[in-house]
This record gives sequence, structure tokens and C-alpha cells, in this order.
Amino acid sequence: MAQQAFKVASQEVTTYINRYWKYSPSPLSIRQLMDFGRTATSQDSYRYLRCELPIRLAHIMKELHHLPNILMEMPSVQTLNGWYSQSLSELIEFREKNADNDSDCMVDKFTDLIHNINQRHSTVIETMAKGIMELKTVVKNHSLDHSSLQYFLDRFYINRTSMRLLITQHLTLFGDEEPFKRHIGCINPNCSVMKIVESAAEDASSLCDQYYMAAPKVEIEEHNAAGNLSPVTICYIPSQLHYMVFELLKNSMRATVEKHIEGYSELPPIKVIITAGKEDIVIRVVDRGGGVPLNKLDVVFSYMYSTAPDPQQSLFDAERSESISPMAGYGYGLPLSRLYARYLNGDLKLSPLEGYGMDAYIYLKRFSVNANEVIPVFSEAATQRYKFGNLSGDWTCPQ
Amino acid sequence: MAQQAFKVASQEVTTYINRYWKYSPSPLSIRQLMDFGRTATSQDSYRYLRCELPIRLAHIMKELHHLPNILMEMPSVQTLNGWYSQSLSELIEFREKNADNDSDCMVDKFTDLIHNINQRHSTVIETMAKGIMELKTVVKNHSLDHSSLQYFLDRFYINRTSMRLLITQHLTLFGDEEPFKRHIGCINPNCSVMKIVESAAEDASSLCDQYYMAAPKVEIEEHNAAGNLSPVTICYIPSQLHYMVFELLKNSMRATVEKHIEGYSELPPIKVIITAGKEDIVIRVVDRGGGVPLNKLDVVFSYMYSTAPDPQQSLFDAERSESISPMAGYGYGLPLSRLYARYLNGDLKLSPLEGYGMDAYIYLKRFSVNANEVIPVFSEAATQRYKFGNLSGDWTCPQ
Repeated sequence: MAQQAFKVASQEVTTYINRYWKYSPSPLSIRQLMDFGRTATSQDSYRYLRCELPIRLAHIMKELHHLPNILMEMPSVQTLNGWYSQSLSELIEFREKNADNDSDCMVDKFTDLIHNINQRHSTVIETMAKGIMELKTVVKNHSLDHSSLQYFLDRFYINRTSMRLLITQHLTLFGDEEPFKRHIGCINPNCSVMKIVESAAEDASSLCDQYYMAAPKVEIEEHNAAGNLSPVTICYIPSQLHYMVFELLKNSMRATVEKHIEGYSELPPIKVIITAGKEDIVIRVVDRGGGVPLNKLDVVFSYMYSTAPDPQQSLFDAERSESISPMAGYGYGLPLSRLYARYLNGDLKLSPLEGYGMDAYIYLKRFSVNANEVIPVFSEAATQRYKFGNLSGDWTCPQ
Repeated sequence: MAQQAFKVASQEVTTYINRYWKYSPSPLSIRQLMDFGRTATSQDSYRYLRCELPIRLAHIMKELHHLPNILMEMPSVQTLNGWYSQSLSELIEFREKNADNDSDCMVDKFTDLIHNINQRHSTVIETMAKGIMELKTVVKNHSLDHSSLQYFLDRFYINRTSMRLLITQHLTLFGDEEPFKRHIGCINPNCSVMKIVESAAEDASSLCDQYYMAAPKVEIEEHNAAGNLSPVTICYIPSQLHYMVFELLKNSMRATVEKHIEGYSELPPIKVIITAGKEDIVIRVVDRGGGVPLNKLDVVFSYMYSTAPDPQQSLFDAERSESISPMAGYGYGLPLSRLYARYLNGDLKLSPLEGYGMDAYIYLKRFSVNANEVIPVFSEAATQRYKFGNLSGDWTCPQ
């Protein structure tokens, strides 16, 4: 009987997915989000979100259902699927029941609804990570199609990041969430990149110092080729930028201390340079912590090789830092940082010099009008990717 | 009648391709090439090559025939196809006629045959580049599937590099080609990386000086984490390594001079660091020449946007440098340098800091046993790549 009810619910959700997946998501640029935040009423925001959220949900759920059955059967993935189904159903029922009703009362109800959705999904990353761990206990590691899983997880987490941003913007602007000074929702139109790097360096230093009783210095330089040598500023989500820089500095500090553990007094400094050109703002972090071999980079960015975070304890959203073993080796912090960069049309890249050090780069779009959301679309290309992604052999493999 | 003859020849070649494509190529590591060069007789080499060359040819010709018809119809691509067909036919006829004959006389005839093949194919890169130019005059640039063409050309040129190396090894060891001192064929078992960088820097400097009447200094540092601070050496093909380093330094010098053209006396130096770890040797070239925006990197490595070299004049093989406009902007030098690195299981990467400078990295395998040939195999994965490679839309595009 319970199973029967589950099936009916599933069928209903499948109908919803197929109905909303036909629409394309409407990604916004940081500029649009900011303009919208400055001028839109709560009704405008409500009308945009009640269309957009189900579409983004439907796209990622369509993709979730392309995961190998064996992963879908893992208890944690079932839990996740339940959350996504419930949220999609609630949003669509709300939308279809109240199609023409824009009253303030309706907006308030919607605001409550998406507040609850945000709460429900707060441990999605940890829960999916647990699902991967569950999978690894039943399937041998080497028989997993790592490349397709990595492809899926990158998309799944970016989709989540995008939905949380849209919801948090609404809640900060029109709900009970506390706004930041001079911010438009979560966006600061005039982030000082230097200040964010300094604050991330302070946080990383203090953590490193607690853990190792020592921390390398961080030397920061700034070169603004675009703006008359004035300080480099950017319209961005400061919490995400802080998360990325903190992650790189934390890794650099750990590597530096561990490589030079015999001679604490002479820890080579970490050198950060902030540059601004006509299109890009780049933050380069150079350390002498010994790097990794080039062919380990995939592992460094992999969700599958990482120590899974514990759903009971830690949260991975940009506003919080990892809570377990804060100076631990490469975990989820690096792949998630790269997602944040890519989500707004930037990137995060690493160039190791094995035995010497690591050069890390955060690429950001200088202009908010180019910092577009880049979010997954479930399409023919994605289907082909899942179908043929694990085909290897168009090159001879290195032995 | 002529057309009839052409068709018969084509049919015969198709049969050959389909017969030999069924075998997998046997890639070698630099170590194997060296050991083989040290101990093998000319008969051993003959027996290996008369099997291996037709297989490598068949794989790339199978792929050539997957090119869009419109490219295959270009006069220069027809010429190329003719060369490849002739070489395959000659090799296979020779092989099948003389299957069990290893006499010295047969080896000499084979040595002559592959010498002629090497000559015939000497302008393959320029001729293919001309074919692309021809294509661009008949097809609008935007309607070309750049990604599939780039995929093909990378594979086509690596295949050629691999065959030329095998042939040149044989000719240097057993033919009339002049051997280098202390080399095994084209391989130097003890290349000093520093000496190659110094010599490439000298060459680039003198070219830059001729062209601009000024050249930035090159500062070279070496860090050998693996070998007790001794100089970094590698078993490699010095001509290819010189080609790559020269290309990077030439680009860095041009960028530096052009950015600082107003103040020649203060050209910021180019900083090269050579590092060796347990697995990798890395050469990092850092300049302050203003870099490029991140989203222009594809263009920098693209064969389609480059100024095509002239088949009548220049040659792109590692042993020679470009002859036309030697300080020209990004041409074929950079994508070909990346191919050389990737061919032996390494890589070449660029990290630009737009408005400031460029960081370039050459990655090499420290041990010759890991420096395996990585060569294209025509397989299901490649077929799918051509079929679906131009599918876009698994992400929302930045506007």
C-alpha cells in the first residue's frame, strides 16, 4: 500500500518533470540580478521565481533519473530524490493553483514555501556525498564510471547553487533574512578584491596556526591594468569569493607547512597577485608547498576520491567553512570552489610544479554583465554524454 | 578513364585501410625506443616498422575519411589524401610481396621506401593548413564545426609526428642520415634541460633583437627536488623540446616588447623555472607581456584562426623554426608545441593574467619509461565524437 502511494507520487512527479523540462532555464547575469534586486517588487520576484524554479528543478531531476540504477537505489540518494520530488510538487501545485493570484498574501505564502525548500535542501551536498560512499561499499571502485559521475555531480551542485542563490536573493530582499550593508541581496556591487583576499588570508592563517602552531606569510600584490592603478573592485557574491580564496590559501598553507615541517622559521611565503584586465579579474595564488604530479589533478578535483563530509555535521555552502578536520587534504572544498567560479562564467585552475609548489588561479569576469549564470540544461548533448561518456580508446593509453 | 583508374586505386586503398585498421597500434615509450635503438639490428627495425607503419597510417586514413565531404573535396586535402594512399599502398605491397624476406637487400629497399615517404610527407602540415584556408573561402567561418576540426587536426598531426619519429629513428640508425653525438637516433638519453632552455632563449633573443632592436632578459632558475640538487636531465628528443621552449619564449618576448614598447630600457625579464619532482619535469615561463583574456585561449591554440603557413616555404617540424614572419602572433607554433608535449604523455598549458602577463607550463614525464607515445586510435569513441561533437547545449551559454 505504501509502495502503491509512492508509485502514484512518482508518476505525478514524472508528469511534472516532463511538463517543465520542456522549458529552457533563463539564466541571469550578476548585473541582471542586481538591477532586479534594486528595482523589482516582491510580486515581480514571485512571478519570476514561480516560473524559473520548477524549470531548473525539472532539468536536474530529469538528469538525476539518468543516473545508474544502482546509485539511485542508495538510501541517501533515495532521500535526496524524495526532497527534490516534494519541492517540485509543492512549487508546481502552488503555481498551478494560484496561477493568476499575485496578492501580497500569496507572495508571503510563496516566500514561506521557498524558505522551507531552502531548509529542506540545506544538506544536499553532504547527503549526495554519503550516497556516493554507500555506492562505494557495494560496488568496487574501479567499476564505477567516474567520469560520468563527476560530470553529473558538477552539474547537480551547480544547479543547486543557482537555485539557492535565486531563493536567497528573494528571502534577503523580501523575507526575514538579515540583509548585509550596501549589498543587493547577497551581491556586493563594489567588492574590494584585496579586502576579501586579506580576510580569507587572516581566516586561513588563524586556522593553520591553531592546527600547526605556525603559518606562512601571505604577500598580496595588486595590478589594475584597467583602471588607472585604482584598487580592483568587482560586483560579486562576496561569500562565494571568500570561500574560493580561503580554500586555495588553506591548501597552500597546509602544503607549505607540511613540506617545510623541519624548519618552521623559514616557511616560504604564499604570494598572491590580483590583476584586472579589460575582461578578466584574476587572483593567482603561488606557493612552495611541493605541488602534486600533473596526473593527480583529476583526483584533486574529484568528488569520488574525497573524504565524504558528514551530513550530520558540516555544511558546504559558501557562507560557512568546513567543520571537520579543517586543514584536511583535498576534500570537497576545491571542486566546489571551481563550481562557484564556473557558475558565474569564470574558472579555477591549478598548475602544479611537482616537488616545488602549486600555482592556482581564480578567473572572474570583470563586468557583472558578463558574469552570467552557467547552469546545466538536460539536452541531447547531456544524454549522449551519459551514453558514451565512458567510451575510452580514441587515444592509446599511457601504460 | 583517368577517373576509373582513380576509383580502382581508391577501392584498393580502402581494402588496405580496412584490413590494417583492425590491428591496434603499438605505441612505444622513449625508453623502449632507446633500448631498441641501442640493441636492435636493422632487420629488427625493418620487421617492426613494416607492421607498425601501415597500421598507424590505416587508423588516421580511416579518420580522414570521416571528415566532412566538403573538406575532403578541397584540392589540398585531395593532394594529401593522394600522398597517404600512395604511401599506404607502397608499404603494404612491399610487406605482402616480401612477407618472409628479411635479407639485407630487402632492408635496404625498405629503408629507401620510407626515406621517400618521409620526403613525400614533408609538407603535410602546410598542405593541410592550405586545405583549411581553401575551405574557409567556400564556407562561412561560423558554419564550420571548429571543435571537430580541431579534434581531427590534433590527431592527424600527432599521428604524423609519431610516424616521422619512427621513420627518422630507422634512417638515423641504419640509413644515410647523419647521427648526432651521444644520441640514440633522435633521442638524447641525457638532455640537460637548462642547456636547452638557454639555447632556445639565445635563439629567441637574437630573433627578437633583429625584429624589434630589443629583447627582454631571460632569468632561468632550476630546482631539482628529486636528485640532490643536481642539474635536471631528461631522456628526450631535444629538437622537440627546443621547439616548444623556443615557441614559448618567442611569444613571451614579443608580448613583452609590444606591451612595453614605450620604454625599451625597462623591459621586465622573462622568468623561467625548471623543476623536477618524482614524476614530472616542469618548465614554467612567466612573462609580463599583458597576457590574453581567458576566453581567448581556445583561439590561441586553434588551427582554424591561425595564419596558415605557406606550403612552398616553411616547414613545421621540430628541427626547423618557422621561416615567415618569425615573430608573428599566435600561429601554428603553439598548438604544435602542445602536440609535441602531449605526444609523449606530457602537456603544455597556459594561464593568462589579462593586462599583466602570461604563465606557460611545459609538462614532461621525468622517466623515459612513462614518456609513452600517446597516439590516436580510430574507434567507437572517435566515431561518436565526430557524430555528436558539435552538439552543444548541455549548459546554458554565456550571452
